[in-house]
This record gives sequence, C-alpha cells and structure tokens, in this order.
Amino acid sequence: MQDASIGGMVATNASGTTAVRYGSMRDQLLDLEVVLADGTVIHTGTRAKKSSSGYHLTGLFAGSEGTLGIITEITMRLHGIPEYTMMARCTFDTPELCAVAAQNILLGGIQVMRMELIDATSIAEVNRQNGYDFPDKHSLFLEFAGARAAIEEEVKLTAVLMNDLGCENWEVASDPTKQKEIWKARHELSFAYQHINGLDETGSDVCVPISRLPELVAYARQLIDESGLKGGIWGHVGDGNFHTLVLFDPKAKGQREKAEYTNEALAIRAIEVGGTCTGEHGVGLGKIKFQEAEHGAALEMMKNTKRMYDPQGILNPGKIFFM
Amino acid sequence: MQDASIGGMVATNASGTTAVRYGSMRDQLLDLEVVLADGTVIHTGTRAKKSSSGYHLTGLFAGSEGTLGIITEITMRLHGIPEYTMMARCTFDTPELCAVAAQNILLGGIQVMRMELIDATSIAEVNRQNGYDFPDKHSLFLEFAGARAAIEEEVKLTAVLMNDLGCENWEVASDPTKQKEIWKARHELSFAYQHINGLDETGSDVCVPISRLPELVAYARQLIDESGLKGGIWGHVGDGNFHTLVLFDPKAKGQREKAEYTNEALAIRAIEVGGTCTGEHGVGLGKIKFQEAEHGAALEMMKNTKRMYDPQGILNPGKIFFM
Ligand SMILES: Cc1cc2nc3c(=O)[nH]c(=O)nc-3n(C[C@H](O)[C@H](O)[C@H](O)COP(=O)(O)OP(=O)(O)OC[C@H]3O[C@@H](n4cnc5c(N)ncnc54)[C@H](O)[C@@H]3O)c2cc1C
Ligand SMILES: Cc1cc2nc3c(=O)[nH]c(=O)nc-3n(C[C@H](O)[C@H](O)[C@H](O)COP(=O)(O)OP(=O)(O)OC[C@H]3O[C@@H](n4cnc5c(N)ncnc54)[C@H](O)[C@@H]3O)c2cc1C
Repeated sequence: MQDASIGGMVATNASGTTAVRYGSMRDQLLDLEVVLADGTVIHTGTRAKKSSSGYHLTGLFAGSEGTLGIITEITMRLHGIPEYTMMARCTFDTPELCAVAAQNILLGGIQVMRMELIDATSIAEVNRQNGYDFPDKHSLFLEFAGARAAIEEEVKLTAVLMNDLGCENWEVASDPTKQKEIWKARHELSFAYQHINGLDETGSDVCVPISRLPELVAYARQLIDESGLKGGIWGHVGDGNFHTLVLFDPKAKGQREKAEYTNEALAIRAIEVGGTCTGEHGVGLGKIKFQEAEHGAALEMMKNTKRMYDPQGILNPGKIFFM
Repeated sequence: MQDASIGGMVATNASGTTAVRYGSMRDQLLDLEVVLADGTVIHTGTRAKKSSSGYHLTGLFAGSEGTLGIITEITMRLHGIPEYTMMARCTFDTPELCAVAAQNILLGGIQVMRMELIDATSIAEVNRQNGYDFPDKHSLFLEFAGARAAIEEEVKLTAVLMNDLGCENWEVASDPTKQKEIWKARHELSFAYQHINGLDETGSDVCVPISRLPELVAYARQLIDESGLKGGIWGHVGDGNFHTLVLFDPKAKGQREKAEYTNEALAIRAIEVGGTCTGEHGVGLGKIKFQEAEHGAALEMMKNTKRMYDPQGILNPGKIFFM
C-alpha cells in the first residue's frame, strides 16, 4: 500500500486518528505555496501563528482537491510528543452505545488522543483472517496522552464513565507491548476487507454533530442489515466521523445497487441532521451528487470560485462539481 | 467601553489572551450564515466537527471585515472549563528576555492558558496612575489550567525554566484572590494609556514566528526609544503577537510622523521575517499600505475574490484593499 503525500492530504483536508485532539490537515497549516492555473505562484499565508491580514486563502486551498491550484510547498505547525501514553479498549452491546460512550467522554472534558469505534462484524473479520480471538463485540479503542499524573486520572474517570454505560472487556495498558496488543484489532482493520476474493466494496465517510452520532451509527447498521449484504462500521467517533464498508458481488444482479443505496441513504441522513457527506476523504466524483443538498446556495459561490481560479477548466476538471 | 460583538470578532478574526491555547476566532467556527451582496443567504459550513466537502468558505468570511458579506448567524465550538487554575508572574531585564522565556515555555511543551508580556514602561504607567508598586520591570504573566496534578507539574517546570533565564520576582498563586492580585497590572493595562490628557496615540499589532519574536520585540523597543516619544509594548507573546502604543502631542510638529514611523518600520520588519502586519486587529484602512508587501501575488486573487462577491462595491467599501 502506498502512503498518502502531504500535498494530497492538504488537498483533501485529510485527517488521522488524532484529529479528535489536533484537528484536520487544514488546522495544521500556516502557509501554502500554490501554482495557479496561469502559472502565477502565490503564498497564502505567513509563518506567524495567527493573522488578520487579507483573505484566508490557506483554508480555501485546503480541501480544494487540486481544482484551484497545485500546492507546491506546505508550512505546518508541529505538536510536541506527549510525555506519557495509555491505551484502552472496551466493548458494548450495540454500536450506538459506543457512540454514546464517545459522547460522554467528550462531555466529561477528557481530551483523548484517539477514540475509535469498530463494530462487531469488523472485529469478527479481523479475528477470522488472523486467527485472533478478540471479543467480537462492538469495540471502543482509546488512547490517552499527556502528563503522567493527568493521564492516570483521565483513565480512571473514563473507566467509571464506561462502566456506567455497561461496558465489558475493559482493558488498559501503559506498557508499550501491551498497548499494541490492545489496539491490534484496530491496526489490522485496514487489511481486513481486502482479502475477500471476488467481492467489490463501497464505502462512506459521513461526519455528524456528536449529539446525532448514536442515531446515525444505528441507522448505518440498519441500512447494512436491510441490504442483506456483509458490511462493517468503524470510525473516528470523537469527531462524529465514521465509515461503512459494504461488500458485494459485482456479478450478482442488483447487489451493487443495494450496496450503493446504503451510502446514499446514509449521506442524505447525515446532511439532514446537520452533518456532511464526507468528513475526511473528499468529494472527488462519488460525492458530487450530494453537494447541492449539503451546500445549498453556497454551491453557486463555490462554482464561481472555481471559475475565477480556473477559467479554462484545466485543473482536475470534473471533480467536486457538475459545472 | 463597549464590548465587541461576536460578528465583529469573526469579521476581524479577533483573538483574546487564550488564543495561545485555543486559537483565534476562525478556529472556533463550524458554520456561518452570511447575507451576500445580492441578498442571497448562504451557510458556509455544517455542525459537524470536520468536513472535506466543497470549498471552505467559513475561513474566507472569517477576517473578511464585512467586505464579502454580512454575517448573520454563527455556530461555534465550545471548550470545557478546566478543573484547576494557577497564575504566575515574573520579571526580566529586557523585553527580549521575556520573549525568549515565552519561546522556552512553548518548546518545553507546556500548554499555557495565557502568556502575556508587559514592558517596564507600561508597568510604570499602571503603577503611576493607580498608586501601585508592582516591580516596574519587563514582566511575563502566565496562566496554567487543566487537571490539578498536571498543572502543579507544569508550574514547577516553568519556574525552573524561568530561573535558568535569570528571572526575578517570580510569584505564583492558586488562591483566586491572590491570582487576581498577581495579574492586576495586566488587567488594568487597557486603561493605562487612556487618561493621559491632550495626547494622541498610535499602535501596532504585528505577529511573527516565535523564533523571531525576541528580535522583533527588541527592535520595537529600539524604534520607540529612537522616536524620543513615550511608548509601551505588550502582547500575546505565546502567539508571537504584540502591540506597541506610542503617545504623541498632535499639536507638536513632527510628533505624529515620528509615532507613525515606529508602526511602519515594525510592520515592514515583521513581514520581512515571515510574519504579518496584523495578528488580530484586522486591516481596515490603516494597514492597506502593507498588503502588497505581505501578500505579494496573492493580493490580486484577494481583489478578484472581492470583485466576485461584491461586484458593485457596496460592502464596507474601501477597506482592506486599494481596488
Ligand atoms: C486504504 C485507504 C485509507 C485511507 N485512509 C484515510 C484516512 O484515514 N484519513 C483520510 O483523511 N483519508 C484517507 N484516505 C483517503 C485519501 O487517501 C487521503 O485523503 C489522502 O490524503 C490522499 O493523498 P494522496 O497523496 O494519495 O492524494 P491523491 O489520491 O493522489 O489525490 C487526492 C486529491 O488531492 C489532489 N492533490 C494531490 N496532491 C496535490 C497537490 N500537491 N496540490 C493540489 N492538489 C493535489 C488530487 O488532485 C486529488 O484530487 C484513505 C484512502 C485509502 C485508499
Ligand atoms: C480598546 C480596544 C481593545 C481591543 N482589544 C482587542 C483584542 O484583545 N483582540 C482583538 O483581536 N482585537 C481587539 N481590538 C480590536 C477590535 O475591537 C476587535 O477586533 C473586535 O472584534 C471588533 O468587534 P466589533 O463588534 O467592535 O466590530 P466593529 O469594530 O463594529 O467592526 C469590525 C469590522 O468587522 C466588520 N463587521 C462587524 N460585524 C460584522 C458582521 N456581523 N458581518 C460582517 N462584518 C462585520 C465591520 O464592518 C468592520 O470591518 C480592540 C479594540 C479596542 C478599541
């Protein structure tokens, strides 16, 4: 598997599992050097931490998916490495309860470093492929990082909150080897659905207000179940962002349509509850159809922006909008 | 004195003393409702914490100073109130050393809540007007906030770092009354230069990379000294942002020019070292002259953006640019 480039990560406003603490790529940027459609080279910012001078073009280019200019240099802020880390995992009876747990942790003022959900189907798949025996239930993976004394208190408080919700299989570790073991199912998830011969997959990337997350996760599970197809849910639940992956046999009549319907229904519902069709992957071609529902009248200003930066339509044409 | 409106704070990308921890106004925004020049109402975002959908218009409107549209509704993220707070103050022989101290605290990974510099001239002015006897030296004001155990460690580490730099008058308090006393000179600063009869004032708002802060603060002091006028320096040094205030007699020939020269020379130097002419106040009319030096070729794209959103030039005309 190839790694993403930093330019690609800025261009899609990508994020990782630590976004719950540090934000997305856009939040890390101080300055971009950009080559515009006519060859002009601009800088969108400075190396100062904050500025109220001129229009904020840095934020505009972040997430523009190569449609406004080519990013050729990136100046980012750095974050220090925390002194001490603890990792934990616990399981719940429903994915919805995992989302409620994520809510309660955030409302408790606990500044987790990472907070990831993996549903039971996906855990079972990881177990099956690797011969593991992780409890195949809906799981919440947590990382805490900071000053040791503070982290130990945060972990204690989290354990209480999780217990109150009826969690099972609570495990926590500070020892690096034990930490890896606890998070293993999460780390190997990316490979879990890649080795299923002959099947295609389709996935979603919705992000919703945390208050609506439990309901959306439950809806996602319902959609997959109703499709009759095999599929899993996992996500960066501290951001309200989660993915579904639905497997289908491209040769079986109607399966592709059923799989794609789960994505569409989920994206529309996410937008309805005040969220977005894509939390971190970007629009590309696949999510053009949701842009009008999500952005309304603002879409016209986005298209005007595209026309202004790229009057001849030479920069990644056809992406993000039907012009 | 009137308080700022939230709309004005978004429109100038304003910030407060806690920006070192939480960022500026732009960093707090999830969604803006904006009325465009032709009356169209748009929403620039959603209530989701992150999104990779469409162009990021939220960031563009933040800091646009009413020149692109009128902000009529603002959705912000909230931050929890930390459990425990400690405040501290210490003094140094030069404002430059205060800036080095700020650097060292940040490099030490200490996540201060506030970190403010006030130079000796301004402390003396606060003392004179109120009959206080704070040590009239260049002072660094600090606030720490978080889990109690973590904060106590942070304060200890900070005390060591400050001692290594030869600080004097180190005082620290957790008791609320004592905390207020320690920060009193900082709180009363805003009034310090307002009661000087017959004199006018001019001020600056540069923000530079933290690595260049000590040199810029020293340069600011030199400029004020060379002007022969009375003036002070204070700032949000954790952001690399500081202000100068220079007093002049509007009736004395040449004084206004001398005062204004300090601002101009400082802004130009800030831009040269990779910073900005305005860290939080905005461009308005006074900093139009620095826009070309700061933004270079990007300025033309900013002007095109203005033309696109406001073809008839009816929104806060004449601000930010000479069109
Ligand atoms: C297995 C897998 C896992 C993934 N996991 C994540 C994840 O955890 N989080 C996440 O956010 N995304 C994830 N993604 C989505 C995607 O890989 C990321 O968004 C990634 O940042 C894209 O980077 P890239 O270098 O591969 O860009 P590409 O795929 O090459 O390009 C992506 C877009 O950016 C544009 N672009 C690339 N470079 C530039 C540049 N220099 N200037 C202007 N435009 C440019 C391209 O035109 C294109 O529109 C994943 C994808 C896969 C296949
Ligand atoms: C004594 C004093 C102390 C200050 N301290 C600080 C400080 O600590 N930090 C800081 O960042 N700034 C500071 N400022 C600068 C300024 O007050 C702030 O930037 C403030 O946020 C402006 O808000 P306001 O409501 O007063 O806006 P106004 O001054 O009324 O307007 C400011 C700009 O925003 C535009 N605007 C206002 N409302 C809207 C809206 N709803 N939609 C679109 N555009 C709008 C206006 O057109 C104008 O261009 C200070 C100013 C003074 C006089």
